[in-house]
Amino acid sequence: MRHGQRGEYAVRCVEDAFHDRELEALLGQRRALIVVSPTVERILGSRIHDAFGSGTGRVLCIRSSSGETGKTFSAVETICRGALALRLDRRGVIVAIGGGVCCDLVTVAASLYRRGVLHARIPTTLVGQIDAGLGAKGAVNFAGRKNALGCYHPPKLVLLDRALLRSLPLEEIRCGIAEIIKMALASDPELFEAVETHLGVLLASRFQAPDGAAQQVTEVAARRMLEALQGNLFEDRSLRRTVDAGHTFSPALEAASGFALRHGEAVAIDLALCAVISKRLGLLASGECERVLRLIDSAGLPIYSGDFTEDLARTALQEAIAHRGGRLHLPLFQEIGRVSFLESVAAVDHEIASALEELSNWHTSAVAVS
Amino acid sequence: MRHGQRGEYAVRCVEDAFHDRELEALLGQRRALIVVSPTVERILGSRIHDAFGSGTGRVLCIRSSSGETGKTFSAVETICRGALALRLDRRGVIVAIGGGVCCDLVTVAASLYRRGVLHARIPTTLVGQIDAGLGAKGAVNFAGRKNALGCYHPPKLVLLDRALLRSLPLEEIRCGIAEIIKMALASDPELFEAVETHLGVLLASRFQAPDGAAQQVTEVAARRMLEALQGNLFEDRSLRRTVDAGHTFSPALEAASGFALRHGEAVAIDLALCAVISKRLGLLASGECERVLRLIDSAGLPIYSGDFTEDLARTALQEAIAHRGGRLHLPLFQEIGRVSFLESVAAVDHEIASALEELSNWHTSAVAVS
Repeated sequence: MRHGQRGEYAVRCVEDAFHDRELEALLGQRRALIVVSPTVERILGSRIHDAFGSGTGRVLCIRSSSGETGKTFSAVETICRGALALRLDRRGVIVAIGGGVCCDLVTVAASLYRRGVLHARIPTTLVGQIDAGLGAKGAVNFAGRKNALGCYHPPKLVLLDRALLRSLPLEEIRCGIAEIIKMALASDPELFEAVETHLGVLLASRFQAPDGAAQQVTEVAARRMLEALQGNLFEDRSLRRTVDAGHTFSPALEAASGFALRHGEAVAIDLALCAVISKRLGLLASGECERVLRLIDSAGLPIYSGDFTEDLARTALQEAIAHRGGRLHLPLFQEIGRVSFLESVAAVDHEIASALEELSNWHTSAVAVS
Repeated sequence: MRHGQRGEYAVRCVEDAFHDRELEALLGQRRALIVVSPTVERILGSRIHDAFGSGTGRVLCIRSSSGETGKTFSAVETICRGALALRLDRRGVIVAIGGGVCCDLVTVAASLYRRGVLHARIPTTLVGQIDAGLGAKGAVNFAGRKNALGCYHPPKLVLLDRALLRSLPLEEIRCGIAEIIKMALASDPELFEAVETHLGVLLASRFQAPDGAAQQVTEVAARRMLEALQGNLFEDRSLRRTVDAGHTFSPALEAASGFALRHGEAVAIDLALCAVISKRLGLLASGECERVLRLIDSAGLPIYSGDFTEDLARTALQEAIAHRGGRLHLPLFQEIGRVSFLESVAAVDHEIASALEELSNWHTSAVAVS
């Protein structure tokens, strides 16, 4: 998959990201800083040092707290300090090997360091490989707000290596599935069916099996994401984006939990709420809504959280309007695979309480059954 | 002057920047944060509050230390916090009213806040009006390095109001003259002559007189700057830039002085050194070199600093190479108004010691005469 327009870049599925010819060619001509997350350092550190660590201090582990709480400007500064210590010049490159947080931090650091250097990404999580690692965006959390500061800075190269998912904890796989469900709901009913069919094996094998399906699901999800970004990589064409499905209520929900709720979990709750609102507004058939809730639930993802109050939902709507240039652009579902945007805050507002209650009841009955 | 390509923007000379129709039209449709420097707050605060302060908390004074030592990421964060407090949305705008530092900070903040909002600039210093406030660049100092982190983020509107220079301290005017001399040396012999002719009055009146010449010098200097940026606003076409004249040794010199040396003073020293090197390499006629040194000196600007060691000069050359994508691209002078780029580090290196000695002697004899 080649991607982008201004700032074209390559996104490739590969068998061994640490020994990729295109990456080697990129690094061969430049000074490079390799940035890894603490988890990646622990699990893949020796392989990474073998592959890239020829120059002293070339591999930098971000030692700040991992996960969203570590996605701070101070971590960006750590990366920039590492780049200065390596005397990275303007033609230098920074490589992120890690999850969405690591990719986000490196993207912001690469955009600021000497007013912008190249960067490459090897996402090591499912979320990274089908969502967070693919676009032009980077961000840090600031003043308690998720992604309040950030940039558009397309990578030069993204390598997707499914074998890296083998060592992921199950909850990370689940979070990736939430984003795959989002993409499927937004644009691909067959992808949704494939996840329904193979969910158990995909989850248990961490996307190493079933052979054809695991590959197909990740590649199609990534391709759908890239198609959705295409032509609007810098969000300067439209703020009406199908990929915003699941991303209206989730940022506020994550922040309200102090980032105890993972991004994918918050997305799952957001998707569930939007499915129920879609049904209540007469957009989505009742059986389709039920399929959505069941798939999310079967993946071990939440459809509801006690933190999710009506007030929080309303704050989130206002924040989404601010973020989307003054209009709501709420992605709801007409059917599985087709988004419909709602602009009326009043219409949504009217359904929030009942929808939350419905989810709470569904949740309770699901817990009672299981 | 309309400027730019991607991200076109207007740079206009106006009589009253605080009551400008284009700015009012821009602010009328949007939430706006007005950022002022402490000096501007003190001198122009009430006028600015009268003009813009209709919304509570709309005018934010950056209370961190003024000047280069305050050009930190922490000051950028202060601006972003102010924007969050005002609930600035994605269509919001941030307005800088201040010198180059204030413009730089606002540019970086506007590029990061919600991944980029609009900004406008009303530069209140001569440097800001003919140089620092005109381009697409913003930056902060980091880890002891000048402008180590930054961005390209073109403004939406720049208003140049010469009346604002009236209250500037003389050393600020001098720093602006250093940048005007740079622009003249790089591209306009007539501008150089105009400064030579009117220097005394320009300086004493803070560019309020002589009437025609003051206006002409500032407008022509600004136009030459914009012409030099045109087509290469993002520095993605070339790193061989005439406007880098005076900006090879100066960043290291400023940083080495702990920013006690002002930017314009460091630029003056850099220009003087490059003029002498140009002469020693046979590029620039001896009389022309003398004119350059005399004009700098007459403006009350330094041509030499005791901090300026050979080692510092060599470090600066290496840093310039890193910054300019691996090549030196040293702007030297063939004549007043014409730049010639030198790529050979050895050729420059060979002249540094003698050139510094020559300047030290010129400096001593000038001091002895005065």
